[in-house]
Amino acid sequence: MNLDRQRPTRRAPLRDRGRNTRQRIAEAAAQLFTQRPPAEVSVSDIAAAAGAFPNQVTYYFGSKDALFIHAAFLALLHDAERLESVGLRMRTPESFRAAIARTVLVLPSVPVVVHALAIGSTRPELAGTVDHYLRLLFRRSEYYLADVLARRGWQTERPIGVETRTFWSTAFGAALLYQVGAVGKPSDLDLPGTLTIHCPEPDR
Amino acid sequence: MNLDRQRPTRRAPLRDRGRNTRQRIAEAAAQLFTQRPPAEVSVSDIAAAAGAFPNQVTYYFGSKDALFIHAAFLALLHDAERLESVGLRMRTPESFRAAIARTVLVLPSVPVVVHALAIGSTRPELAGTVDHYLRLLFRRSEYYLADVLARRGWQTERPIGVETRTFWSTAFGAALLYQVGAVGKPSDLDLPGTLTIHCPEPDR
Repeated sequence: MNLDRQRPTRRAPLRDRGRNTRQRIAEAAAQLFTQRPPAEVSVSDIAAAAGAFPNQVTYYFGSKDALFIHAAFLALLHDAERLESVGLRMRTPESFRAAIARTVLVLPSVPVVVHALAIGSTRPELAGTVDHYLRLLFRRSEYYLADVLARRGWQTERPIGVETRTFWSTAFGAALLYQVGAVGKPSDLDLPGTLTIHCPEPDR
Repeated sequence: MNLDRQRPTRRAPLRDRGRNTRQRIAEAAAQLFTQRPPAEVSVSDIAAAAGAFPNQVTYYFGSKDALFIHAAFLALLHDAERLESVGLRMRTPESFRAAIARTVLVLPSVPVVVHALAIGSTRPELAGTVDHYLRLLFRRSEYYLADVLARRGWQTERPIGVETRTFWSTAFGAALLYQVGAVGKPSDLDLPGTLTIHCPEPDR
C-alpha cells in the first residue's frame, strides 16, 4: 500500500507513518467499542474516526473481530491507569481492596474485554492475540501490586501471580453476570474478598 | 403442528408429547454442545439426535441461539449434581472448598455456559432466559450450601447468596480465561480461596 500517494501531506518516514495509522485506528476503535455494541460499529465508522481508509483497517488488523480484540485490551490497559491511581491513594489494605473492586466494576472497558475473551475462545486464529494481551495485563497487575505492597509494607496470603489472576477472573466473571442482569448490584458479590492483601501481624 | 400425524406410534396425551419432544431436543442439544463447538452443531444434528424434526427445534425454541442457552444451563444443572455429591463427601471445610473448586473447573458444561452468557449479553431478547437460569442456579447453590453448613456445623464469613455468587463469578471468569489459554492450570488462581467456609471458632 503506497501511503505516500494516499496521504501526501505527511512527512514522517514510511514505517512510522504505518505505525501511526495503525495506532490511530486502534485508538478510534477502542473509543467506539466502549460507547456502542460491536454490531453497531462498522469498519467505515472506525476508519472515519481515525482519519484513515476502510481498507487500511483490514490491512493492519485483518478482520473486525481481530481489531475488536486489540481495541478492547487497549481500552482496558488505558483504564488500568485509573484503577492503579485509585489504589495508590488508599492508606489501608481494607480501603485498597474495596476501592480496587468498586472501580474495576465501573470501568467501561471490562465488559468489552469479556466480549473479546468470548470471541477469542471460539476463534482459534485469534486466541494468540487474546493470550498476548492477557499476559500483558497480568504482568502489569503483578508489577503494580508488588510496588503497592513494597510501598505500604502490606502482604498477600498467596503468590502475587495467583492473587492478580484470581482477582481478574472474578472481575471478568462478575462483568459477564452484570451484563445479563443476573447480578444486580456490586454488593451481590464479594469482589474485595477475593483479594488477600493485609497488614503483616507482628506477633506471628 | 399435528404431532399425531408425525409420530403416530406415541400414545401419550398431546400436551405431554409436546413436553417430551421439547425435553428430548433440549437434552440432545445439551449433549452435543458439550462435545463440539456450537458452530459445528446444526439444527438437523440436534433434531436427528432427539428423534425429532428440524422444524420442531424452531417450533419449541425459536432459534439455535435460544436452544443453545437452554441446553447450556440444562447441562450445568445436570453437572451440578456431580459437584454437589463430591462436596457432600468432604469432612472438613478445607477439603470441601478444594474439592468444589477442582471439580467445577472440569465440568464440561461450564465453558458452554460461559459462551451462553456471552451470547445472552449481546442479544437482549435472550437476556430473560439467561437471567431465569442464573437465578435457578444461584437459588439451587444457596439451598445446597445452606444444607451442607447445617449438616456439618460450618459457617461462612458472608451471606450465603454473596458466597455462591462470588464463587460462580470466579468460576465463570476462570473458565473464560482457561478457554483462551491464558490461565494454564488450576493452581494459577485460587478458586478455593474465594469460598469463606470454615469451622466456627469456639473461643470467639
